[in-house]
Amino acid sequence: MNAEQVTGSTYLPKAMRIGVLGFGGLGQAAARVLAPKREMILVAAADKQGYAYAAEGLNAQQCIANYQSHGSVGYLEPFGTLTHRSIEDLLEKSHPVDGYFLALPNLPNNFIPSVARQFIKSGWRGVLVDAIKRTSAVEQLLEMKEELQAAGITYMTGCGATPGLLTAAAALAAQSYAEIHQVEITFGVGIANWEAYRATIREDIAHMQGFTVESARTMTDEEVEALLDKTNGVLKLENMEHADDVMLELAGIVGRDRVTVGGIVDTRNPKKPISTNVKITGRTFEGKISTHTFTLGDETSMAANVCGPAFGYLKAGIGLYQRGIYGLFTAAEIMPQFVK
Amino acid sequence: MNAEQVTGSTYLPKAMRIGVLGFGGLGQAAARVLAPKREMILVAAADKQGYAYAAEGLNAQQCIANYQSHGSVGYLEPFGTLTHRSIEDLLEKSHPVDGYFLALPNLPNNFIPSVARQFIKSGWRGVLVDAIKRTSAVEQLLEMKEELQAAGITYMTGCGATPGLLTAAAALAAQSYAEIHQVEITFGVGIANWEAYRATIREDIAHMQGFTVESARTMTDEEVEALLDKTNGVLKLENMEHADDVMLELAGIVGRDRVTVGGIVDTRNPKKPISTNVKITGRTFEGKISTHTFTLGDETSMAANVCGPAFGYLKAGIGLYQRGIYGLFTAAEIMPQFVK
Repeated sequence: MNAEQVTGSTYLPKAMRIGVLGFGGLGQAAARVLAPKREMILVAAADKQGYAYAAEGLNAQQCIANYQSHGSVGYLEPFGTLTHRSIEDLLEKSHPVDGYFLALPNLPNNFIPSVARQFIKSGWRGVLVDAIKRTSAVEQLLEMKEELQAAGITYMTGCGATPGLLTAAAALAAQSYAEIHQVEITFGVGIANWEAYRATIREDIAHMQGFTVESARTMTDEEVEALLDKTNGVLKLENMEHADDVMLELAGIVGRDRVTVGGIVDTRNPKKPISTNVKITGRTFEGKISTHTFTLGDETSMAANVCGPAFGYLKAGIGLYQRGIYGLFTAAEIMPQFVK
Repeated sequence: MNAEQVTGSTYLPKAMRIGVLGFGGLGQAAARVLAPKREMILVAAADKQGYAYAAEGLNAQQCIANYQSHGSVGYLEPFGTLTHRSIEDLLEKSHPVDGYFLALPNLPNNFIPSVARQFIKSGWRGVLVDAIKRTSAVEQLLEMKEELQAAGITYMTGCGATPGLLTAAAALAAQSYAEIHQVEITFGVGIANWEAYRATIREDIAHMQGFTVESARTMTDEEVEALLDKTNGVLKLENMEHADDVMLELAGIVGRDRVTVGGIVDTRNPKKPISTNVKITGRTFEGKISTHTFTLGDETSMAANVCGPAFGYLKAGIGLYQRGIYGLFTAAEIMPQFVK
């Protein structure tokens, strides 16, 4: 960080002021990830029914407690505000925030792009990061590249696990090869209780045969339960529409048709049904065909593999922003920076 | 690339003009890696006895043939020049070169830093990339950071396989964790004939007990042969002084004492004795201890895993340079860009 403030007799770098939009499973995990950090502080959090802001930092546990017991961080005293226009109202206050993590379920599929548009309209300048999944959603953001640049916003898209960490691993692994033949992402997710990640599970269901984003979004909890009962709580996902493909194509690594994403989600067991991995197959300059493999440790949760990278990319984005570099970037182009 | 030239009726991006300094095993492999690329052309190559330059591009096979039959690329007609001051003479000519890969053995241990100093003195501006190995060598370059910045040079250090590709994989994998406990790099190298990589093998021997950089450098080929005879051609290396440690420390990921590098080199068999991998162990925000693993395909050679990343970082460095960003960067901070 270039920005510094005098603290006692020594100069300490000023912590990056972070906002988290969306306070479901992912947003709550994000707040917990931030809590022990010295380089970043959570100053703002918002959900459908309200928001909370504190210049000196919000207490993650208090935010989570208020959300879980009352349904909104807006109930947090004395920092909360109840409103059904939480993002607009938060932005109107012009509180100083360096970067926001859009921990929002992208339902409908243009929701996150519409939030990005709200940021542009508000005149806010800074860094946005998302952990969006679908190719068609990233494509909507790609169309906003010039607008974001003109607005002085550095937007990091596809910065969760897949797309995100695993896409970046593929981009890195590709360096050994003269030509890439195949990128194959397979994820395993185990959660004890699907209700902790209602929106994420609905986004997964939307990828299954016979479902659409809209039909999955409007399912009642009972309908989701009934579906999960049929499969013993396990969702098998193949040939998913995941933005890893467009991100790797955009980075000049491989055509999108050579990138596949699939996985198994067990909604009744925290143990992963399979190890999450990405395999990158290509041809070396000597003509050898080979495969690099990046495998995530089974004990790492979806939340750890999404929120950690998201903040690493947010920190990298703040570095770009400070150099006056605005626009749209993906996880395949930028190295995330470790947040202490 | 921003620089464009008119070709017929369409605008094609201008290829990046690349020089390769050092034309032993690594330099020759680098020339072969570049040969099929459209985004980069090899315009300069230099060795101890001479250099070759061609604005329209050198033929890799012809450079290799002249080096192998006569001992120097300087014999290449009509582009070669014979000189024992090849780097100085090449720089004095002020040929336009966007970036150089320093494919030089770092023997003695201050050799590559001394070459960087020559570049600074010459007034040349552009991008340099190395695949240097030792911590102490990277530390010498770190001391030159401001000088490089003032000179308008973007220097990418530690951008081979280890340090380089594997260090970057560790930096990426670290994102899932709140705290990193251990980074363990283990490499396997198989080469059919040690004489194809004389300098690299001497650098490896210098890491063994009872040897120093100086004593390994001055070994005759017969002495190397005799040593390899004793071990059936296999070198076992542990706790090597590899700059992965300082690079990960500098990136704020983990203290250098938590990073270990070791490996097995078989000098009589192209098959790798073990799969090269990096294991990153840490604690997630939920308190779980886990390990991510990145494993290179056994069919990928040392040359592919060093030269590919080096040019990927060189391309990324040229992007930084074009934005006016100079100084010293490591493989742990920047995402390499795939070169087509």
